[in-house]
Amino acid sequence: MLLRLDFTTAFLAALLSGASAQTFRRFGTCPTLGCVIPPDQQDFLPGQEFDIRFEIHAPKNGSEAFNNGVPDEKFTATIAKDRGRPRSLNEFFKLKEPALEKWTFSWFEDLFAQDANTPSVVNVASKAYRRVALYEPGTYTVTLNYFSGKTTTAKWTVRPLATRKKAKNVIFFIGDGMTTNMITAARLLAHKTINGKYQTLLSLDDFPVLGHQMTHSIDTFITDSANSASALYTGHKSTVNALGVYADTSPDPLDDPKVETIVEMLFRIWGSAWGAVSTAFIADATPIALSGHSRLRSQYGVLIDQALNGVANYSWTKTDGPDAYFGGGADQFIPGSGSFQGKDYYAEFARKGYSVSLNKTSLLSAPTDKKALGIFCKNNLPVWLDRHIFPENLEINNDPSGANKSAKDLPGLKEMTLKAIDVLHSRGGKDGFFLMSEAASIDKQMHALDYDRALGDLLELDDTVRATIAKLKELRILDDTLIVVSADHGHGFDVFGSSDTKYAAAQTEDRAKRNAVGVYQNSGLSQYTEPKPGVSYNTGANFPLNWDPRYVIAAGLGANPDHREDYGVGKTPRSPASARNGEYYVNDKDRPEGFVVNGTLPTSESQGVHSLTDVPVYARGPCQETFGGTYSNIDVFYKIANCLGLGHGRNVTEGAEKRFGKGNGTGKGKGHD
Amino acid sequence: MLLRLDFTTAFLAALLSGASAQTFRRFGTCPTLGCVIPPDQQDFLPGQEFDIRFEIHAPKNGSEAFNNGVPDEKFTATIAKDRGRPRSLNEFFKLKEPALEKWTFSWFEDLFAQDANTPSVVNVASKAYRRVALYEPGTYTVTLNYFSGKTTTAKWTVRPLATRKKAKNVIFFIGDGMTTNMITAARLLAHKTINGKYQTLLSLDDFPVLGHQMTHSIDTFITDSANSASALYTGHKSTVNALGVYADTSPDPLDDPKVETIVEMLFRIWGSAWGAVSTAFIADATPIALSGHSRLRSQYGVLIDQALNGVANYSWTKTDGPDAYFGGGADQFIPGSGSFQGKDYYAEFARKGYSVSLNKTSLLSAPTDKKALGIFCKNNLPVWLDRHIFPENLEINNDPSGANKSAKDLPGLKEMTLKAIDVLHSRGGKDGFFLMSEAASIDKQMHALDYDRALGDLLELDDTVRATIAKLKELRILDDTLIVVSADHGHGFDVFGSSDTKYAAAQTEDRAKRNAVGVYQNSGLSQYTEPKPGVSYNTGANFPLNWDPRYVIAAGLGANPDHREDYGVGKTPRSPASARNGEYYVNDKDRPEGFVVNGTLPTSESQGVHSLTDVPVYARGPCQETFGGTYSNIDVFYKIANCLGLGHGRNVTEGAEKRFGKGNGTGKGKGHD
Repeated sequence: MLLRLDFTTAFLAALLSGASAQTFRRFGTCPTLGCVIPPDQQDFLPGQEFDIRFEIHAPKNGSEAFNNGVPDEKFTATIAKDRGRPRSLNEFFKLKEPALEKWTFSWFEDLFAQDANTPSVVNVASKAYRRVALYEPGTYTVTLNYFSGKTTTAKWTVRPLATRKKAKNVIFFIGDGMTTNMITAARLLAHKTINGKYQTLLSLDDFPVLGHQMTHSIDTFITDSANSASALYTGHKSTVNALGVYADTSPDPLDDPKVETIVEMLFRIWGSAWGAVSTAFIADATPIALSGHSRLRSQYGVLIDQALNGVANYSWTKTDGPDAYFGGGADQFIPGSGSFQGKDYYAEFARKGYSVSLNKTSLLSAPTDKKALGIFCKNNLPVWLDRHIFPENLEINNDPSGANKSAKDLPGLKEMTLKAIDVLHSRGGKDGFFLMSEAASIDKQMHALDYDRALGDLLELDDTVRATIAKLKELRILDDTLIVVSADHGHGFDVFGSSDTKYAAAQTEDRAKRNAVGVYQNSGLSQYTEPKPGVSYNTGANFPLNWDPRYVIAAGLGANPDHREDYGVGKTPRSPASARNGEYYVNDKDRPEGFVVNGTLPTSESQGVHSLTDVPVYARGPCQETFGGTYSNIDVFYKIANCLGLGHGRNVTEGAEKRFGKGNGTGKGKGHD
Repeated sequence: MLLRLDFTTAFLAALLSGASAQTFRRFGTCPTLGCVIPPDQQDFLPGQEFDIRFEIHAPKNGSEAFNNGVPDEKFTATIAKDRGRPRSLNEFFKLKEPALEKWTFSWFEDLFAQDANTPSVVNVASKAYRRVALYEPGTYTVTLNYFSGKTTTAKWTVRPLATRKKAKNVIFFIGDGMTTNMITAARLLAHKTINGKYQTLLSLDDFPVLGHQMTHSIDTFITDSANSASALYTGHKSTVNALGVYADTSPDPLDDPKVETIVEMLFRIWGSAWGAVSTAFIADATPIALSGHSRLRSQYGVLIDQALNGVANYSWTKTDGPDAYFGGGADQFIPGSGSFQGKDYYAEFARKGYSVSLNKTSLLSAPTDKKALGIFCKNNLPVWLDRHIFPENLEINNDPSGANKSAKDLPGLKEMTLKAIDVLHSRGGKDGFFLMSEAASIDKQMHALDYDRALGDLLELDDTVRATIAKLKELRILDDTLIVVSADHGHGFDVFGSSDTKYAAAQTEDRAKRNAVGVYQNSGLSQYTEPKPGVSYNTGANFPLNWDPRYVIAAGLGANPDHREDYGVGKTPRSPASARNGEYYVNDKDRPEGFVVNGTLPTSESQGVHSLTDVPVYARGPCQETFGGTYSNIDVFYKIANCLGLGHGRNVTEGAEKRFGKGNGTGKGKGHD
């Protein structure tokens, strides 16, 4: 069973708690009662469009109760550049005064309050300034005045960035949840050593430049894939579950202050082509954050509409839809409860000139001069291991047409990515392209503690990177193309030895089964690279020769639900814990030969969770030298944007006008010039 | 209680099993019955001295039984450069035929054989060619002929390396067991974020160049600290527990084929000064591998004698002893059972002109123009957290004089490193210096699952790096000095959320205690950087303001013995599991408020174990640009050696002669010219 594993479960739990993401803090980016959004310490690209929101909080009860719960509706705000004169936002941005908005939200002060169901309630008065931009590099100070005498100050930095393009194309590979530890393990499985020397290496191992990026959210140190993708694409960190916006406290998930994304800017300024490829459902956080603006990543239907048609409820920059869009997730395309307004999004895309492919055969023959949509199953794509080694697991109702049958003519990440390059290269022409290609199930399978399936998809990513370099060489655009491979966050995975599956299976007691694990000198060498008589998967070089050796890797996360462990390859996808009375306990049907490991996570968690670790950034091509060292995830955006010459001191819409027609660009943001 | 945690326990267990490191393989680097050591695929630096051993194996019983257990004593061997004529080793190296040696060893074929105590026995015939070198870059093919018709071939590569020095000095910091995950966690504890932006950063975060190195052993994928340190210092991978040698199968741990280390070469060629600093006992693997040559890292006494006097049982290159040598480990210096031949090594060092310091006060006032020894406690130095936050834990019998009292006038890594730089800079003069400085207890405390103590020592390392850069600037040698910061291996540690210690302590059931963990949006921000009223440790910037907040990090390894977890700071050092009938069970005295996590490791393991992950390499200074990307741990050696101009096409002994006198260098190796 392939579920939307990623963050959906945890997200639903948070919604049900009634406190949403404010649990244990009133509002993560605002310790005071007056909130400036974007908050203090944020960075901007010159000319990047964004919204501003002010909120005044009046807590009615709880530890912060103030002014009987009546918020100040007469708050004022100013903005000043460097040491310049503070001016009202209306004057500065040449805007009319926005309408006052009001709402109420609640939160829990700690777990004791949550157990007792005693929420703290907050009344809010707010105004939003929509679609502005700052063109001149420098420091801007925003001051919010409220409750006669209280002030909140936010300092924003507009970074000086290049206006000249150094790379014609950018291909950004994201291994969702991929860490250095996993890359090391994948190398061990697929590449052979002789006396300590690898005979072949990962494609990633050949990248000349390596960096580390910090993945934390704006208001928590553990991130999800929505706001981390958003940080990589916009240069702005956000809150768990949010993408393309800073989170506010209003109940509407589509009114939060937006920030322009890299593909929106690239299209507006240069008119480049863009695409997204993912092994997840295409409305999932990592692909959808390129075009989506929502406080809640789970607004799948509307997010697909935004990808095609742009933001509908506000004037906002548009991209004319992706030029190549390949992945799973037919649930948002088949007319019905999963699609926006119940519409048929295959038809909506076709109406806008897209070729539509529902299987690999059709994908491979799709024209490269038309925009291309490819949706290959209902939800996430089956993983590499099931497509290649255990195809019996494909026998599920998963056809992207909605017919009750299994989808078997499936492309992998490599086929989707290479086809996307053909389409984007053809359509981008001299204006180039931006492609994001995501190996989504590294994360999804790590959540399920299914390490082999995760590492199989990591090897598929590496194989895709290798094939991409060959493809770009063949198209003679390798030297014009910046390739970045990174991740959005990690899981605390590592390999610590080998395990003798034969010995473990012969033991009856849990403690004796553990003695099958060999550490240090007993870890031995990888048996995954040793040919096994009679076994050939025909998966070529760069993948294991034997996925089911006697001596398997012994690996684990530090963060687990209750589960059984046998360290071996799961011949069916893994479901480590099962529910009983709303709590998760060990699933005795999973790895029945294994021993029980009781969990370290809350009993409400059915899976492993994300971790803190900095993740690697591999770069090659133009601007590669800027990717060394250690930096924040938002810096990945600024490095790419700098290489694409996206820093402009005026509202540039020439790119969009190439497609939408002169004077009919994406409309104009209000900027200070 | 501060034990020699690192690898000693596992090592002893291996010895007791009677199979030593050959468990489950007859001999890791030799799948055939004829063994060439160094084996196939090894790399060499031009002019690097080394030994060669051939072994012919005749298994008496077991799956490989051959020739009734009688080894071929008439084996022959040749060596050929590139496509040149194969010549006998005697001719090639101008050596006399060495004597034939014979011995027997045994191993277990798997865990079933070990349980049944049915070892496989092997008779061996062998010859060793001592102290040779290859001067010309290229490929050398060694062919061993045995059992009339069998052959084993080894290809060796002598890399072309620079003869010109680009860096005058090299400082190599090793965070033992330190991974990217731990660095990320340490940053979270000691540095504050505001709205997702770090207000200060680690010193490591400022390094311009980052790489990853693969840590595996020559014959297993999980390494210990001996052979990984040895790979970093010699360019040759080896076997668990071995340092400065390739492991052979003979019973004598001091007759295995040696390889010359970086300080031996640096001294021989340039006469530079060298030093080692460690928070471990100074005979521990990471510091002692600079000068030591032994199959067994536990030969502590003789290894200290080798550091001072060089290898005694064979003609070998010598270093005249370290110029600065600071750490713990008085047990090898106080005359008695721990010291070599029961001698007083304080006196031995003093006799060779060393100043001897036994406390911080004495260290700080030691002359910088004399060689300096500083030994500050009996075993490992107490960790940063105990020295600064919980000094009551220093109350143990630990005085380096051997007196029954606690050592309290203790230097930290920073004081030892800065003093070492003063001594080395003064003594190295225009010939420069090489310093290795090790934060040893990152590893030792990770073994004990004592994450706070490990991260405290990581922050001490970072603080030491920062102070080192300032010191080099002050001495005006920053631009002449290559600084490399790396690790020898990892542990599978990561942070996955926060835990509410107050809530956890208020719950009585294990499962309820787990619900104190907050993941994703509930992870919140670091409370370690929030000032706590009444608490000041006076540890300055770059360390936590509060080590014991209500919301602590929730972290773990995937590799654990049975233990209790409460995620909080341990006010005494941690001992997670305790022994009962020779097996380890949860120690109910450790973290009594915590919940039980049953282990994932063999029940013979009392601690966590090393992991597979590639570890980071940070570089700044001359040659920094060569440290980007991904490479093997041996490449760290070649990069440093290249920067120090150690590749020479002839036997250079000018450096050593500066100290030992003209014509009285370190003796001459036999090289092919």
